[in-house]
Amino acid sequence: MTWAGHIAETVRRALAEDLGGRGDITSRATIEAFAQAQFVIRSRQPGVLASRAVADECFAQTDPDIRLNWLVQDGERLQSDAEVVEIRGRVRSILTAERTALNFLGRLSGIATLTRAYVDAVAGTRAEIAHTRKTTPGLRALELAAVRAGGGASHRFGLDDAILIKDNHVAVCGDLSKAIQRARRHAGHMTRVAVEVDRLDQLQMAVEAGADSILLDNFPLENLRQAVEQTGGAVVLEASGGVDLGTVRAIAETGVDIISVGAITHSVSSLDLGLDLLQRD
Amino acid sequence: MTWAGHIAETVRRALAEDLGGRGDITSRATIEAFAQAQFVIRSRQPGVLASRAVADECFAQTDPDIRLNWLVQDGERLQSDAEVVEIRGRVRSILTAERTALNFLGRLSGIATLTRAYVDAVAGTRAEIAHTRKTTPGLRALELAAVRAGGGASHRFGLDDAILIKDNHVAVCGDLSKAIQRARRHAGHMTRVAVEVDRLDQLQMAVEAGADSILLDNFPLENLRQAVEQTGGAVVLEASGGVDLGTVRAIAETGVDIISVGAITHSVSSLDLGLDLLQRD
Amino acid sequence: MTWAGHIAETVRRALAEDLGGRGDITSRATIEAFAQAQFVIRSRQPGVLASRAVADECFAQTDPDIRLNWLVQDGERLQSDAEVVEIRGRVRSILTAERTALNFLGRLSGIATLTRAYVDAVAGTRAEIAHTRKTTPGLRALELAAVRAGGGASHRFGLDDAILIKDNHVAVCGDLSKAIQRARRHAGHMTRVAVEVDRLDQLQMAVEAGADSILLDNFPLENLRQAVEQTGGAVVLEASGGVDLGTVRAIAETGVDIISVGAITHSVSSLDLGLDLLQRD
Amino acid sequence: MTWAGHIAETVRRALAEDLGGRGDITSRATIEAFAQAQFVIRSRQPGVLASRAVADECFAQTDPDIRLNWLVQDGERLQSDAEVVEIRGRVRSILTAERTALNFLGRLSGIATLTRAYVDAVAGTRAEIAHTRKTTPGLRALELAAVRAGGGASHRFGLDDAILIKDNHVAVCGDLSKAIQRARRHAGHMTRVAVEVDRLDQLQMAVEAGADSILLDNFPLENLRQAVEQTGGAVVLEASGGVDLGTVRAIAETGVDIISVGAITHSVSSLDLGLDLLQRD
Amino acid sequence: MTWAGHIAETVRRALAEDLGGRGDITSRATIEAFAQAQFVIRSRQPGVLASRAVADECFAQTDPDIRLNWLVQDGERLQSDAEVVEIRGRVRSILTAERTALNFLGRLSGIATLTRAYVDAVAGTRAEIAHTRKTTPGLRALELAAVRAGGGASHRFGLDDAILIKDNHVAVCGDLSKAIQRARRHAGHMTRVAVEVDRLDQLQMAVEAGADSILLDNFPLENLRQAVEQTGGAVVLEASGGVDLGTVRAIAETGVDIISVGAITHSVSSLDLGLDLLQRD
Amino acid sequence: MTWAGHIAETVRRALAEDLGGRGDITSRATIEAFAQAQFVIRSRQPGVLASRAVADECFAQTDPDIRLNWLVQDGERLQSDAEVVEIRGRVRSILTAERTALNFLGRLSGIATLTRAYVDAVAGTRAEIAHTRKTTPGLRALELAAVRAGGGASHRFGLDDAILIKDNHVAVCGDLSKAIQRARRHAGHMTRVAVEVDRLDQLQMAVEAGADSILLDNFPLENLRQAVEQTGGAVVLEASGGVDLGTVRAIAETGVDIISVGAITHSVSSLDLGLDLLQRD
Repeated sequence: MTWAGHIAETVRRALAEDLGGRGDITSRATIEAFAQAQFVIRSRQPGVLASRAVADECFAQTDPDIRLNWLVQDGERLQSDAEVVEIRGRVRSILTAERTALNFLGRLSGIATLTRAYVDAVAGTRAEIAHTRKTTPGLRALELAAVRAGGGASHRFGLDDAILIKDNHVAVCGDLSKAIQRARRHAGHMTRVAVEVDRLDQLQMAVEAGADSILLDNFPLENLRQAVEQTGGAVVLEASGGVDLGTVRAIAETGVDIISVGAITHSVSSLDLGLDLLQRD
Repeated sequence: MTWAGHIAETVRRALAEDLGGRGDITSRATIEAFAQAQFVIRSRQPGVLASRAVADECFAQTDPDIRLNWLVQDGERLQSDAEVVEIRGRVRSILTAERTALNFLGRLSGIATLTRAYVDAVAGTRAEIAHTRKTTPGLRALELAAVRAGGGASHRFGLDDAILIKDNHVAVCGDLSKAIQRARRHAGHMTRVAVEVDRLDQLQMAVEAGADSILLDNFPLENLRQAVEQTGGAVVLEASGGVDLGTVRAIAETGVDIISVGAITHSVSSLDLGLDLLQRD
Repeated sequence: MTWAGHIAETVRRALAEDLGGRGDITSRATIEAFAQAQFVIRSRQPGVLASRAVADECFAQTDPDIRLNWLVQDGERLQSDAEVVEIRGRVRSILTAERTALNFLGRLSGIATLTRAYVDAVAGTRAEIAHTRKTTPGLRALELAAVRAGGGASHRFGLDDAILIKDNHVAVCGDLSKAIQRARRHAGHMTRVAVEVDRLDQLQMAVEAGADSILLDNFPLENLRQAVEQTGGAVVLEASGGVDLGTVRAIAETGVDIISVGAITHSVSSLDLGLDLLQRD
Repeated sequence: MTWAGHIAETVRRALAEDLGGRGDITSRATIEAFAQAQFVIRSRQPGVLASRAVADECFAQTDPDIRLNWLVQDGERLQSDAEVVEIRGRVRSILTAERTALNFLGRLSGIATLTRAYVDAVAGTRAEIAHTRKTTPGLRALELAAVRAGGGASHRFGLDDAILIKDNHVAVCGDLSKAIQRARRHAGHMTRVAVEVDRLDQLQMAVEAGADSILLDNFPLENLRQAVEQTGGAVVLEASGGVDLGTVRAIAETGVDIISVGAITHSVSSLDLGLDLLQRD
Repeated sequence: MTWAGHIAETVRRALAEDLGGRGDITSRATIEAFAQAQFVIRSRQPGVLASRAVADECFAQTDPDIRLNWLVQDGERLQSDAEVVEIRGRVRSILTAERTALNFLGRLSGIATLTRAYVDAVAGTRAEIAHTRKTTPGLRALELAAVRAGGGASHRFGLDDAILIKDNHVAVCGDLSKAIQRARRHAGHMTRVAVEVDRLDQLQMAVEAGADSILLDNFPLENLRQAVEQTGGAVVLEASGGVDLGTVRAIAETGVDIISVGAITHSVSSLDLGLDLLQRD
Repeated sequence: MTWAGHIAETVRRALAEDLGGRGDITSRATIEAFAQAQFVIRSRQPGVLASRAVADECFAQTDPDIRLNWLVQDGERLQSDAEVVEIRGRVRSILTAERTALNFLGRLSGIATLTRAYVDAVAGTRAEIAHTRKTTPGLRALELAAVRAGGGASHRFGLDDAILIKDNHVAVCGDLSKAIQRARRHAGHMTRVAVEVDRLDQLQMAVEAGADSILLDNFPLENLRQAVEQTGGAVVLEASGGVDLGTVRAIAETGVDIISVGAITHSVSSLDLGLDLLQRD
């Protein structure tokens, strides 16, 4: 699906969930059909904005006459109490779309905010912060766009765009080299092969068997350093496991290329945003 | 949609996202088509389980021959390192479904776990912990089931099943009583009307205008206590705003009926669960 | 889904059904591609109009260049032979959409017309005419909007927005009070609980157990009167069963709050509407 | 779509509409999860049954363990108070599916019942009772199956499976013969061409221009007789307009082949059916 | 579905397939977001164009700001190296839609091209070239439109718009006449009945039993001629089987009405079209 | 979507297209509801089978009681007149599914057959035959599975799983090296970067800029040989353009790694398969 189509479909489902069979009975009951007003969405804490286009779509599907005037770009830092976007149109429509729009903006800006914290923490090293596949079911494409808005790097999107041989694959296949070779053959010439290793002594074998990238899961810092030294740039090195804002800089300083962090999508606090009435038209 | 149908559709979308056009190329490359094994999902931290049926569906859609043997019920507490479910079947299929199943189980059990912490904190008071509409777009029904698994109570599902007049409705409508009366007329006899108030002196007016329930947003403890006293059970009182695990007990002890907590769905850490190989068959 | 989205989806399905794989082969065969004309839809009998927006959508999906000029509002009374809407555009497109648009307009205006007859019959009493869930599968939201256009009141939309305990629930649960108490607990503070009773002596028990509303099914007029007297406004009273245009006024005069009428959606004659050619452009 | 697939999809939509986001909260609140019972659906008035398969699907989608034992065939006549089907299974599931199943059964049996009345009225003549395209949007295939269950004959399913040139087509095309000839050329050799005529003197022209079938709309009986005489079987003659149970026999006795009746789908009273508890298991 | 709706849905699916979860990562990586340019699609071989509206939709869904200026009509002949359409807009968007648009245009123009070759080969005879149901699953409506663009005639669209009794039906039914009579009865008066025969001596029986059209499958030329002579226009005669560009003229000259050719949809070479950059804006 | 889910959805759409609103009216008219028989699908020419699972699904969706007994594997060679699969079940159902099943089997086996011819032609060289993205819209996943059944190798599935910089990208970007470097940065460490070059002197630059794979489009044999020599295995070399069964061996003998062939999906003759009645049960 096109990006615009994907957003439209995701928003349609979200609005359907909130509107049910009867729609917003509160606004219909309490607000005149043609009352117009101007609102603003404000951030109630500092953060990084993401997913403007998703919020646009929430309002547009509810009422194509609503006008939004964004004051901040995706990826831009917000201070507490910052004005994010002015919204003008029929009050009923704006209040109907409010919660769905804020649910998207809050979660996705929360992801951008947390990603940015990790990216800032490794500034000046060669390491990039990459996402994992530990995303919210149904929202992966939007969440990865939020990771990019926060300065993060791309990893596999899903199971089908690269090969990543994990410990369970090796355990069942029975042999690391054999697993890599099979993958190499199966992959086709347009697909990367990565492999997870447990021990330093597997590194050499993985490189020789043809891995493009090696995932060092839960390696102590010392071993990460040795891995960087041993491979000397012949292969991409990725660290994962035990990464938090307290440990990420030390990991980055070992010289690894990539640090993948599940928490930036699986354990996120929504950015606190609220809709305030500016004035009735 | 039926509950089973809703789960099936939600899982279908999640698997589609992870499998893309080519499916799990790693498992197809490295694992023999008919290799069978037994795995176990273990919790890597304490928590409360939720959404077994969703995980069941992830494996069933991938391969109807996979067998799951659950060792824990939804809503049950898990110790760290607890065995949650044994899984037996084709290795390829199990590894293909793994990430999607764990993404659901992790997020939804994270919600149950956090809800349970709030519920435990108010034990012995009359207050119930209720969810809000600050849920992940597309996953509301599953997330609210997880709240219930954690001992939480139901609130509005969406915009259409009850009337909740918020500050913006009142501001635009211009008058609290008028807003409630309009809502009362519009609602039909089968629909509840709740209203958010800012000040104690609005309480009486809200009750007289016919509100079934009153939402006290960001009230100091003292004011909550006065509200309880003033209304004397004539109306349901709900507190919200500024609720965290440090403050919730004191709020409950004011005597309010309901404490609604956005954080139990909008700011959740996934419960850390992993899939371990037990043995090849 | 938004209201506009719901209409769009419902119309899409209806047009798909009529157009099949090849579309309107008659118009394509007999009418020049660019022939333009002006038509009018006329009512061939008196009635009340409903669902203009649905008819708009039928024409718009078929050809966005068709222009409609409505001469009547939703909810307005039509005389026999009244002009309802002028339609101008490509003849092929207008004739292609004709039947689908008239099928919607006819059925939904039929519902508004019949509802209006009941509402008029109880004018001056306190009773409101409410719909039931006996609607055409797939068209509930549109049919209930037609009921409102005819002056009817809202009831439950579906199984999930209020609790209504019927005779079969009580029979299986085994005890009226227990059923209501369970419902009360389960419902959450934002959900109404109604209960169907068979006999006058259950009224008191139902009120005490916490029912918000009581459905008196097939009660003789005398018993309805006694129920009104006994409860004295403490609870909403709804009458149903054996309601027709000959009996509804007497029922209303007993003082009940609500009379629910299945016939206004389950046994409706379509309003007879036809499309007439005014002139070729 | 296959017939089974079409029914499944139609039922899915209908259940979704009734169940909303939270499902049947009444049954969940008041009935034990595993309570089993036996119910029976009874007809509360005489009629003709239709759409057993649709009711089956309503129960099966709600709970695959429900068992139905039908006592009547589609197309069979029911006496008042007749037992139609026994249903055994979990009470919660049966009550959840009840309304949707009865809405389908009631409407579609209502159609079969009314069709049968027309068919009986013309018994012994050569005329067949055919449906029109005046069906409920979204339910055409099911409604036409109900017409067949009532003994009615097939007409066009939709705009794409036969050509039917109506007055508006002729008016815009400008010439009856030209319209038929164009249709003949466009149609392909596998498609029938029918034409609506207003006057007896157009009959000859229509036959010569190549019409397979002629629709005589609102013809007086005398003119119908003359049309039958004039064409002498060279073409199929169809009467429509002003047909009701009082007039249909006289129309049939003029010798026309087909009488098409909009009322059998557009103005139908649902057959009154109810679900009664037989015994708890 | 409307024709525009059908195209939109088909294109949506095709773009989804090509764009996956991450979209066109090449264009996003290498082309500036706002770079604009003008391109042209050229035919690299002679042919007949079809499906402009489908290509329009591919570009419009990708980016509504792309402008197309068609230089050729559907059904028009193209020389080798002919310019087909000029395209102007954002480069990223145009390159993203390129392959999907060319895949549709190439296949459908290939069908029009091959159909035109057959139609030209029978020019001057009474025979029309008709399609079969041997089309690409999911693309039938578009492929049949391409057949018409190439000058071909319509046959059955699918299994439901006409009756065609084939050898297997007769074999199981046991008797040709009986099969036709059953079909006649079942069909309704708006549906044609065709029958496939193997031998000349069945012709008479088929006509008498009421077939509208007879399919002569794999008949030698001599037998086709005899069939034409025997039936003398009383029935439509269709030849099929063993038809290729070398044999089709001789078949047409036997006097049959219709020659149906599976190859025009089941064995087609895509017309070779390419997108060339004209200039950057 | 899972592979089984993808097939189910694709078949559902194909059957819907053929069955329309009324289904298979021929079989319903001419065959008894419970008539059973045994059929066989035979190949009418030599080829390679593909897509058994798709044919299985066509019959299963039509009637779950149909039994198939396959006599040939996917990827296996068929002689002319070979028996492919025995089918037993209700005659009506089998004839209803016949055309859709044969349309899939014919096209996909046609692809496998043509792929196999290319693969055989390069046997003994190092070259693999790979598909392109020139597939039938909506059928890519099935067509690529058919390519694999014919012995072909994988290339990019779509625009999102690898980067392939083509001439138009370079032309707009303005510089080959810059395009590759941008791609490298954007790609993430799990994504391959390929680039199309026009001239031998660009090879060195492409390798240095970091391309993983180089596409040599329309290179003369001599230049292909030089490219192989110059790069000496440092990069994957792919040839495309001007490839047919007459030229492919010579291209393979230049030593390139991959030969991509659009014709194996865009210009395919369906394998001729037919359904024969064996015996009535």
